[in-house]
Amino acid sequence: MAHNSEEFVVTPWEVRGKVNYEYLIKVFGVKPLTDQVLNELKEVLGGELHLLLRRKIFFAHRGLEWAIKDIKEGRRLFLYTGRGPSGPMHVGHLLPFIFTKWLQDKLSINVYIEITDDEKFLHEPKASYEEIRKWAYDNMLDIIAVGFDPNKTFIFLDTEYMGRVYPLLVKVAKRINFSEVSAIFGFTQSTNIGLIFFPTFQIAVTFFEKRRSLIPSAIDQDPYWRLQHDIAKGLGFYKASTIYTKFLPPLTGPTGKMSTSNPDSALFLTDDDKTIYRKIMKAYSGGQPTAELHRKYGGNPDIDVAFQWLKFLFEEDDNKLKKIEEDYRSGTLLTGELKLYLYEKVVKFMERHRERREKAKELIRLYMYEGELAREMWSRDFSKW
Amino acid sequence: MAHNSEEFVVTPWEVRGKVNYEYLIKVFGVKPLTDQVLNELKEVLGGELHLLLRRKIFFAHRGLEWAIKDIKEGRRLFLYTGRGPSGPMHVGHLLPFIFTKWLQDKLSINVYIEITDDEKFLHEPKASYEEIRKWAYDNMLDIIAVGFDPNKTFIFLDTEYMGRVYPLLVKVAKRINFSEVSAIFGFTQSTNIGLIFFPTFQIAVTFFEKRRSLIPSAIDQDPYWRLQHDIAKGLGFYKASTIYTKFLPPLTGPTGKMSTSNPDSALFLTDDDKTIYRKIMKAYSGGQPTAELHRKYGGNPDIDVAFQWLKFLFEEDDNKLKKIEEDYRSGTLLTGELKLYLYEKVVKFMERHRERREKAKELIRLYMYEGELAREMWSRDFSKW
Repeated sequence: MAHNSEEFVVTPWEVRGKVNYEYLIKVFGVKPLTDQVLNELKEVLGGELHLLLRRKIFFAHRGLEWAIKDIKEGRRLFLYTGRGPSGPMHVGHLLPFIFTKWLQDKLSINVYIEITDDEKFLHEPKASYEEIRKWAYDNMLDIIAVGFDPNKTFIFLDTEYMGRVYPLLVKVAKRINFSEVSAIFGFTQSTNIGLIFFPTFQIAVTFFEKRRSLIPSAIDQDPYWRLQHDIAKGLGFYKASTIYTKFLPPLTGPTGKMSTSNPDSALFLTDDDKTIYRKIMKAYSGGQPTAELHRKYGGNPDIDVAFQWLKFLFEEDDNKLKKIEEDYRSGTLLTGELKLYLYEKVVKFMERHRERREKAKELIRLYMYEGELAREMWSRDFSKW
Repeated sequence: MAHNSEEFVVTPWEVRGKVNYEYLIKVFGVKPLTDQVLNELKEVLGGELHLLLRRKIFFAHRGLEWAIKDIKEGRRLFLYTGRGPSGPMHVGHLLPFIFTKWLQDKLSINVYIEITDDEKFLHEPKASYEEIRKWAYDNMLDIIAVGFDPNKTFIFLDTEYMGRVYPLLVKVAKRINFSEVSAIFGFTQSTNIGLIFFPTFQIAVTFFEKRRSLIPSAIDQDPYWRLQHDIAKGLGFYKASTIYTKFLPPLTGPTGKMSTSNPDSALFLTDDDKTIYRKIMKAYSGGQPTAELHRKYGGNPDIDVAFQWLKFLFEEDDNKLKKIEEDYRSGTLLTGELKLYLYEKVVKFMERHRERREKAKELIRLYMYEGELAREMWSRDFSKW
């Protein structure tokens, strides 16, 4: 669905303006992640919820109740998420991966991670294929650094895995016509025929196992899963359960999405500490112009990027977060202090990420080819699926 | 191009009515195969022309002059043809293959034969994928029986070879939009997105070598090659030279195309001699209702299926053919005699075909995987092409 309003735009290829999540829930036709659903999820997952759930950073879903029922009744699921490798990954891109890894640990199930190099090449008018492949490799290192189980995780590049999966794709493609993808993705007469075909691949991954997929993704990917629901049953497969995350607010303020074209809007996973310090210090703030005014009137954590980043990812302790929020609102905690606190958290996170990213260069062959699940997927005959 | 007139229809997916080849040349915008072009071709090929050329069964072309120039100036070409495996092959399907094999012998160059199992599955509403795969294997035996050089010929199934070639396909697909395939192939809002993407594959084969492809095909495939001409240069490849055959007239008379849905319209390559006899004897005739009338008024070889079949394929000797034509027209040669003559020719042809078809079961691995060209193509990295 290409949603357009005067204020903001959210499609799989564009996020612009200040995203109104309540409104998105309505126009996309998804369900909000209510306390009731969260409690049920908590119960089937053994009593604990990830901070991304506790704080409703994951805020909406499509058919999550089916996955909860499956878990409750002892049916296995599999996890599926992905990445379009059009540039370097930033901290915000990690949210679905961190959450997916947490679910894998909880449920001990397979994870499929699709790297859509085909889609990115087809979508970006100026991108060369070589450039996209370079980013694909680079992004995979960041994803692997999240720590998925190498025997239960299959990371694949579309252009590489297409050979195995095309017989499944034609079955999916036969059930989707131009009129549907045009209504759902906003494809027009001038859309290239590679991009028109692409949704087939993103959807087909939900049929990699003959059980239900659970898909953590950013809300902009919902159009794919809506289409998946339309065709899954006819093909004899399961409808996917999906759960949607908000976008980590850009350093530059509460509108838009972090982006490579505006490097100061985001922390990239390869930024060094000096760059991180500089970017955080100049980040959009909810504080007052001077320390005096801040002490007097207090700050606004709801729009303060540093506070939001702690909430989204970097402060795991709910009590500490609450204290920070109160102190900032009351003016006891100054903007500089808050930013420094975030900086220290981020630096620690990045240090660990860098180490793991380095190790990922050796591990990548497990996820792509040699791990248990990868080997199974490379010997799979989808013409008989 | 989906050509529609009240009298006949010729598209890659439908041939109906009595085909007017003169008119097709005009609406498709191709060139007739003139005596001048034939003479030039004769010269560069060493002074001999196949009967399909001498008798102008191949009747039109697109850019054949470029291929002739290439040969003349010592540049190698490669040959490319294919088959959509939606059912059993009949005698008429062999024309482009027989001609391609002759060119391979003359020029000692590579041949690529695409089996479009994806396209057929995507196009036929009721076809199961398993059914199409079965026909693909069956058809490949008939094609191999034609006798291509197993070290210079690569036969591939789209769904199997897609894995190697997809990186090339995305580059092709990026240059073709819906508006173009809709104008050229008549795709509409209700066309499935697999079929919309498919032309990419059929076109990409013309880029398998960094030289010009020469494509013998039925005229209904011209829309693909027209599109190929639009994009080849932009991608740094050669425009294809194509040469088009007429359709072998159906046994049932001069309208339409031979088809599986009307088994008496065609001789299938697996028909036994008894069936062949029966079909030829009841074939549409240009003779008179009785022997007496025939002797008096003579027959019309121009619409007589038996005569046309001798002309298209089964009588290699031009002098004999001329004699038969004269005798039939004058009434000396009776319809029954003509049919018997054809029957004997066909039986001899089929006998040899059956033998070769049997041997093809062992040879198939050479053409698909183990011959010199096949091995090269399976190790090709198209992401660096």
